[in-house]
Amino acid sequence: MTYTTPARDIRFALNELAGLAEILKLPGFEEVTPDLVEAILEENARFVQQAVAPLNVAGDTKPPVWQDGKVTTTPGFAQAFADYAAGGWQGLQHPQQWGGQGLPHLVSAPAGENIQAASLAFSLCPMLTDGVIEALLTVGSEAQRRAYVPNLLGGKWTGTMNLTEPQAGSDLALVNTRAVKQDDGSYRLSGQKIFITYGEHDLAENIIHLVLARTPDAPAGVKGISLFIVPKFLVNDDGSLGARNDVWCASLEHKLGIHGSPTAVLLYGSGKGDVGEGAVGYLVGEQNRGLEYMFIMMNAARYSVGQQGIALSERAYQLAQAYARDRVQGRAIEGSAGPVTISHHPDVQRMLLTMRALTEAARAISYVAAAAHDKGTHHPDAEVRARNRAFYEYLVPIVKGFSTESAVEVASLGVQVHGGMGFIEETGAAQHYRDARILPIYEGTTAIQANDLVGRKTLRDGGATAYASIAAMRDTLKALEGDAARADATERDGLRLLRDNFDQAIQAYESAVDYLLQHASTHPRAVYAGSVPYLMLAGIVHGGWQMARAALVSRRYLADGSSDPFYRNKLGTALFYGAQLLPRALGLSATVRAGEVTDASAALADIA
Amino acid sequence: MTYTTPARDIRFALNELAGLAEILKLPGFEEVTPDLVEAILEENARFVQQAVAPLNVAGDTKPPVWQDGKVTTTPGFAQAFADYAAGGWQGLQHPQQWGGQGLPHLVSAPAGENIQAASLAFSLCPMLTDGVIEALLTVGSEAQRRAYVPNLLGGKWTGTMNLTEPQAGSDLALVNTRAVKQDDGSYRLSGQKIFITYGEHDLAENIIHLVLARTPDAPAGVKGISLFIVPKFLVNDDGSLGARNDVWCASLEHKLGIHGSPTAVLLYGSGKGDVGEGAVGYLVGEQNRGLEYMFIMMNAARYSVGQQGIALSERAYQLAQAYARDRVQGRAIEGSAGPVTISHHPDVQRMLLTMRALTEAARAISYVAAAAHDKGTHHPDAEVRARNRAFYEYLVPIVKGFSTESAVEVASLGVQVHGGMGFIEETGAAQHYRDARILPIYEGTTAIQANDLVGRKTLRDGGATAYASIAAMRDTLKALEGDAARADATERDGLRLLRDNFDQAIQAYESAVDYLLQHASTHPRAVYAGSVPYLMLAGIVHGGWQMARAALVSRRYLADGSSDPFYRNKLGTALFYGAQLLPRALGLSATVRAGEVTDASAALADIA
Repeated sequence: MTYTTPARDIRFALNELAGLAEILKLPGFEEVTPDLVEAILEENARFVQQAVAPLNVAGDTKPPVWQDGKVTTTPGFAQAFADYAAGGWQGLQHPQQWGGQGLPHLVSAPAGENIQAASLAFSLCPMLTDGVIEALLTVGSEAQRRAYVPNLLGGKWTGTMNLTEPQAGSDLALVNTRAVKQDDGSYRLSGQKIFITYGEHDLAENIIHLVLARTPDAPAGVKGISLFIVPKFLVNDDGSLGARNDVWCASLEHKLGIHGSPTAVLLYGSGKGDVGEGAVGYLVGEQNRGLEYMFIMMNAARYSVGQQGIALSERAYQLAQAYARDRVQGRAIEGSAGPVTISHHPDVQRMLLTMRALTEAARAISYVAAAAHDKGTHHPDAEVRARNRAFYEYLVPIVKGFSTESAVEVASLGVQVHGGMGFIEETGAAQHYRDARILPIYEGTTAIQANDLVGRKTLRDGGATAYASIAAMRDTLKALEGDAARADATERDGLRLLRDNFDQAIQAYESAVDYLLQHASTHPRAVYAGSVPYLMLAGIVHGGWQMARAALVSRRYLADGSSDPFYRNKLGTALFYGAQLLPRALGLSATVRAGEVTDASAALADIA
Repeated sequence: MTYTTPARDIRFALNELAGLAEILKLPGFEEVTPDLVEAILEENARFVQQAVAPLNVAGDTKPPVWQDGKVTTTPGFAQAFADYAAGGWQGLQHPQQWGGQGLPHLVSAPAGENIQAASLAFSLCPMLTDGVIEALLTVGSEAQRRAYVPNLLGGKWTGTMNLTEPQAGSDLALVNTRAVKQDDGSYRLSGQKIFITYGEHDLAENIIHLVLARTPDAPAGVKGISLFIVPKFLVNDDGSLGARNDVWCASLEHKLGIHGSPTAVLLYGSGKGDVGEGAVGYLVGEQNRGLEYMFIMMNAARYSVGQQGIALSERAYQLAQAYARDRVQGRAIEGSAGPVTISHHPDVQRMLLTMRALTEAARAISYVAAAAHDKGTHHPDAEVRARNRAFYEYLVPIVKGFSTESAVEVASLGVQVHGGMGFIEETGAAQHYRDARILPIYEGTTAIQANDLVGRKTLRDGGATAYASIAAMRDTLKALEGDAARADATERDGLRLLRDNFDQAIQAYESAVDYLLQHASTHPRAVYAGSVPYLMLAGIVHGGWQMARAALVSRRYLADGSSDPFYRNKLGTALFYGAQLLPRALGLSATVRAGEVTDASAALADIA
C-alpha cells in the first residue's frame, strides 16, 4: 500500500488560499524563507512516504501487545520513531530557543497532516508529545521546562494527556483522581485514567504524563482540578533517570480502529513502583487551574485532529481513485465497445469527487485557519492580531468537527467505491473506515465542538466573527459573478451554479446565525439542538468559500495560458463542490432554524 | 447484550400504515387470521430473543474457521439453525403445498426483520435459502422442486447464490464459469466463484448452490449466462445423499463485519471429489436465461437486505438509547442540581431521534411495500394488481438503497452516542458500524439500486408511478393541514412545520422527477450522475409520507382519549422527522437537478 503526499494541492492551498508569502513576512519568521519551506515539505514527504506510510497496515494487523504492564509496539514503529526524532520533526513548531525550528503553524500544519496520512496510529505519539511540550512552555516553571522539554523535543521521551476516567469522559467535573501534597512540595497521585493514548510503549525511554487530579481541599467541579507532571521514571537532578514511578499500565483497549496506537488504562498509586505508594507528581502552574491549562493542549490537539480528518480523507481518496481507475466493470453509459474502468461511471465519479472536494475544502479551511493563527500571534498590528485570533478561534471547532465528520463520510464512500472488495480487510479501505470513526469523538466530540462554536465563538461576540466571515464571503461572491460573465460556454453554467449555490448557502448560514442570536437567551435548548447542524453548515459554507476562491485562482492561471492540468482539475472539483455539496447548506440551515420544534418534539417523543 | 423486538412499532406499522386487515382479506390468505398473525409474531419474537440474539457477539468474535476445505461455524450457530428449522421458520413465506405456511409478505417481513436484528450474520443463511426455494419454485422443473425444495424448506439443507467471480462483480456480463453438457443431460462446471455467503458450513447436511455459468456455445455478455443447480452432495433417486461433488471451499474472506457469516471462495471442477473432474450441475429452466432467473432471487434478496438495514438500525438504536439513559455526564442545559444522564443533552437527543426516526420511516416504507407486493399478487382486480405491482417495484430499490444507507448513518450515530466507549469493541456499537457497511454493497450496490430506480422504475413508465405517489402524498398533506388547524399550541408548531417541510419535500421530489424525464434522452450522464441522490430523495420523502400518516393516526388516538405513551412518542418522532430529516430533500433535489453541471465538472476534474 503506497501513499503519496498531495504535494501540489498542499502548495496550492498554502500559497494561493492561505497566503504563505504574507505569513513568512511576519516578524519572527524572517529566517523562514520560501526555499526553506519547500525543502522542509520535500524532506517531510520523502520521510513519511518511505519511513511511515509502509507501517500503516502493520499497525492495524499487528497491534501493540501488553504483557505484565509492558507494551511492545508494532514491529517497525520504534525504528520509525527513532528516525522521526533524528530528523528533528518533533521540533518543527516549537521555539528555536528550546531546540525547535520555530516554524509558522502554516508550515507545521502540512507536515503534521502528511505524517497523519502516512499512519494515523503512529502520528498520535508525536501529536500528544507536542501538546505536552506546548503546555510546559506555556505554564510550566522554568525548572520544569528545562527538566522535560529538551528530551521531549528531541524524541528521547514522549508525552501523554490524562483526562478521562471511567465516570468522567466529556464531563471533567467528575474527575476524582487524588493528589496529596508532600512535605517536599511534590504530590502523590492515586486514581485510574482511561483512554490514554500511548500511555505505555517501548518507543522512548521515558513517558511524561500530564494528569488532571484533585487536591483534598479542592472545590467540587471543574474549578477544583489541578494539572500535574507524572513521569514514568523520575528524573534525577543531573537529568538521568531515577526511580520507577507508581504509574502502571493495567491493560490496552481493544478498539474499532487505530489499532497501532496503544490506548492504555493507567493506574496511579497502586504501590508497585520504587517510590512507595502513590505516583510522584509535580504541580504545573497554580492549583485548581488545571482545566484551563489542559485547554492549551486541547486546542492544539483539536486542530491536529481536524487535520487527521483531512489526512485520512486524502489517503482514503487516493486508494479509491486508484482502484476505480483499475477495476474494469460495465459499459460506459453512452455506450462503449467493451467494459470500461468503473471511474467512467457517473455514480463512481460522484463518489470520488465528493471525497476529493470534501478533502480539498477541509484542507483549505485548515490552512486558512493556520494562517490566521500565525497572524494572530505574530502580526505587528494589535487590531489585526485580535481579528485573526477571533477568526482562528471560530475556525478551530469547524476544523475539528467538520473535517472529522467529513472523514467518516469520505472513508465510507471509499469502501463503497470498492464494492464488495471494500468489505474485505486486505483491500485497506475498511481500515480507513474503522480508523476514521474515532476522529469525531476524541479531543472533544463533534457536539462539544459545536457547543463551543455556538456558545463561545458565535454568541459571545454577538455573531461579530461569523458576520465578518459572511461579509468576506460576499466579496468572493462578487468576484465570482464577474468571472462567470467572462467564461466561455463550457464553464459558464458551472460557475453560475457555483455562484448561485454559494449565494444561497451564505444566506442559509446567515439566517442560522441570526436564529442562534435571537433565541439564545429565550430558548437555549432550541439553540443547542441545532449546534451540530450549525457546525456542519459553517463547514460546508466556509469550504465553499475556499473552493470558490480556488476556482477564481485556477481560472486566472488558465486564462493566463497555463496548460497545467492541475488548474483544470481544481476548477472541476470546485464546480462539483458548488453543484453537489453547497446545496447541503439548505437542509442544514432549515434544521438549525427548526430548533424549537426539534426540542419540543424530543420532549414529546420522551427520548430522555 | 440483550435485544427486544420492537413489537409495538411493528404492529403499528403493520396495522395502521400497511393495512394488514385489508391484506388478510385477500383471496388466498383466508386462513391467515389476525390471531394467527399475532401468535406467529409473538413466537417469532420469543424465538429470536432467546435463541438467536445472544449469538450476535459470538458470531463477531468467534468467526467460522476454515480447515482443509471444511468450515466450522461459530459455536451455537448449529443449534440455533436446528431450532430455526424445527420451528418451521424457513417455511413462513413459502407455499403450503410444499410444506410452508403461505403467509403474506406483510407477515413474513417483520419475522425476517426480527431474525436479522437478532443476528445479521446468522440470518443470511436462511435468507439465501429462501432465495433458492423461490427460484426453484418459479423456474425449476417439477423433478427439481421435489428433489430439493422440501429439504431446503425443512432446514435439512441450505442454499446459496453464486454470481460473483474475481473479474465479474456488479457486471455479470463478465462471468466465465464454464458448463459443459454431458451425455446424460447433466453438465460439468468449472470456474471460481467468490463472495459466496454460507458457501460452506456445518449447519446442514447438504448445500444447494445455484450457479451462473456459460455453456461453450453461449453468446457473449449477459445473454449467454445459464443457471445451474450444483449440490455439494449429489442426491440419489431415493433422496439419500450420494457422491461428494467437485465444488470446494478454497478459503473464507477476512471481512470488516458480519464475521459470523462464512464468505467462501468456491472452486468448481478442481477434480478432487467423488465424481471425477468438473462439478456436476443441472440446468434450471432454459439455457441462456440464467440472469433473468437469478433476478427472481435477487429481487427478494434486495427487499430482505433493505430490511436488514432496518433491523440493524433498530438494534443500534436500542443499544445507544440504553447507554444514553444510563450514562451520567454533564449538567442539563437549563441547569440541574447534579449531573444528568446524557439522554438529556440536546445533541444526544438529536442523534437518538435521528436514529429512531430513520428506522421507523424505513420500516414503514418496507411494510407498505410488502403490502403492495401482496396486493400485486393476490388482489382479485387486475388493475389493482398492476398498480400495486408497479408501486412495489418502485419501492424495492428504495427499500434496499435508502434503508441500508440509513443503516450506515444510524450505526455511525450509535457509535457517536457512546462517545469514547463506542470505539471500544466490547461495547457492541462498533460491531453494528462494521456490520452495517456491507448492506449498501451486497445484492446490488446503492448505485445499482439507483440506476434501477431511475431507468426501469421512473423513466420507463414516464414517471407514472412516481407521480402517482406524489398525488397520494398530497392527499396526506391536505389531511395534515386540517389536523394542524385543530391542534393545541404545544403541537401546532410541530405539525405546521411537518406540513410545510413535507410540502416543500414533495415539490423537491417532483422537480427531480421532472428533471430526470426531461433530460433522460438528451443528457443520460447528467441523469445518472444524480441517481443516488434521487434514490435518497425518494426515500426521505416516502419516509416523510409514512411519518406524516403515523402522526395523523397517533393524533387520532390521542384525541380519542388514549393515554398510551406509544402514540405520544410516535407523534414526537414524526414531528422530529418533519423538522430535522425532511429538509434533506431540498439539497438532494438540488443536486439531482444539477446533473449537467455535475457531469461537466467531473469531466473537467479529469476524475476518470
